[in-house]
Amino acid sequence: MVKVPDFPTSNSWYHHFVSYGETDTMGVLYYAEYLHIFERSRNVYIRERGMSYAEVEKRGIILPVREAQCRYRSPIQFDDEIFIHVGIQEWKRVSMKFIYEIWNKDKTILHATGMTEHASINPDGKPVRVPEWFKELFV
Amino acid sequence: MVKVPDFPTSNSWYHHFVSYGETDTMGVLYYAEYLHIFERSRNVYIRERGMSYAEVEKRGIILPVREAQCRYRSPIQFDDEIFIHVGIQEWKRVSMKFIYEIWNKDKTILHATGMTEHASINPDGKPVRVPEWFKELFV
Amino acid sequence: MVKVPDFPTSNSWYHHFVSYGETDTMGVLYYAEYLHIFERSRNVYIRERGMSYAEVEKRGIILPVREAQCRYRSPIQFDDEIFIHVGIQEWKRVSMKFIYEIWNKDKTILHATGMTEHASINPDGKPVRVPEWFKELFV
Amino acid sequence: MVKVPDFPTSNSWYHHFVSYGETDTMGVLYYAEYLHIFERSRNVYIRERGMSYAEVEKRGIILPVREAQCRYRSPIQFDDEIFIHVGIQEWKRVSMKFIYEIWNKDKTILHATGMTEHASINPDGKPVRVPEWFKELFV
Repeated sequence: MVKVPDFPTSNSWYHHFVSYGETDTMGVLYYAEYLHIFERSRNVYIRERGMSYAEVEKRGIILPVREAQCRYRSPIQFDDEIFIHVGIQEWKRVSMKFIYEIWNKDKTILHATGMTEHASINPDGKPVRVPEWFKELFV
Repeated sequence: MVKVPDFPTSNSWYHHFVSYGETDTMGVLYYAEYLHIFERSRNVYIRERGMSYAEVEKRGIILPVREAQCRYRSPIQFDDEIFIHVGIQEWKRVSMKFIYEIWNKDKTILHATGMTEHASINPDGKPVRVPEWFKELFV
Repeated sequence: MVKVPDFPTSNSWYHHFVSYGETDTMGVLYYAEYLHIFERSRNVYIRERGMSYAEVEKRGIILPVREAQCRYRSPIQFDDEIFIHVGIQEWKRVSMKFIYEIWNKDKTILHATGMTEHASINPDGKPVRVPEWFKELFV
Repeated sequence: MVKVPDFPTSNSWYHHFVSYGETDTMGVLYYAEYLHIFERSRNVYIRERGMSYAEVEKRGIILPVREAQCRYRSPIQFDDEIFIHVGIQEWKRVSMKFIYEIWNKDKTILHATGMTEHASINPDGKPVRVPEWFKELFV
């Protein structure tokens, strides 16, 4: 059993089958594709709380990625069924940090861990306080 | 209501939410991403019949794309929920043709149609007859 | 030597090394990546004529893809140096058709041929006549 | 002028025009695409030293990414001409660390910084000492 740090109480699981187009000549999920998968898990996380990131942007809040990091622990192959665990680890005044874990089908192998830090800006690109209605989605 | 040609009797529906990473500066699903989505619908189509494309390759049959075509009828945006209809339209001795339709959430707008033609080859790259066990999956 | 149809007089060559991220488990350039490469060759084609597609859009003309097609003739591998031949084969009143050939390093193997058809629309999405200043770039 | 840490003496510059397919609905280079661009800069870095990563693998050394990180400092748009600075910052016995900077056309804006850590393994997946012939390429 893999030891992992405590995960945020509010979290979601995103379920995915690896496609051929996501793999590379080494026969494994290409390293940049993990960030696409992280994004999809964020979308599910927000969607499961009755919102969508498209709606967040319509309300005037944009959350561009300021930093991304991924630790690749064991390879993932074509057609593998994986489960992505996503949560928000930290809230700052004008930013927040999402964290991720990618597990195999029966959640015994931790394939990868990662994080993305997002700024909170308005459509003019100015940093703005993360709105309460957004934070409350994840309580 | 949109008029579309008859679809193969054996078919599947693949369900997808468009991610940010699949869109472009025009704010729509980028044209190359349709081919990724077609591939995923093929995988679902095979998987729903109790097989997987990974298993097909393990049995010695590889199905590389020989031709792909897509007609883009109306744009698809970030976070749109779409349904992809997939079926095999034609069997030849050493090849086959998949067809696709991409519909909006309530299946009233036909966003795109497409096709992919696949050769049937062995691991040495030689054309081989499409095996009966494969064809029987889609009866 | 490969026989190919006559290519438009106005044309460009785009030069590319295949990256790992563009390949798949089969060890070859993934079929959707050809459309990315076609787009890059279009950009080079326009750029070599003293314009850029970004500038075309600023002038109010948007050229979304209406149809794309690719014929995959022989596989391309990681690190292969390829040459993409691009030209405009046909002008219609509110659309145009680009064609493509992908050749190996010494231009003896034709790996793929393709085409993309583009509508000419304004920022409101209405079809507009292809402007003369655009057509004259490719004379 | 931007202050940046000293860059490794052995380094390369990779030159790139951002394509439409690399951008997203926000109108900027999508965050996962930076990792594709890092990979391409690594390939150029190795190629400029008379080797290629394909050749490295043929000699029995595989360099899978163990960790990747990117700091996004200012957005990059479609058709932007960018310069990617790449070097190897650190050699360990069975791994190495590449670092990256992405600059604008005239190298006055530092758009992003990043790093990738690579294991050195043999085709069986066992960690192996980084060979001297590989290290000597970058002296």
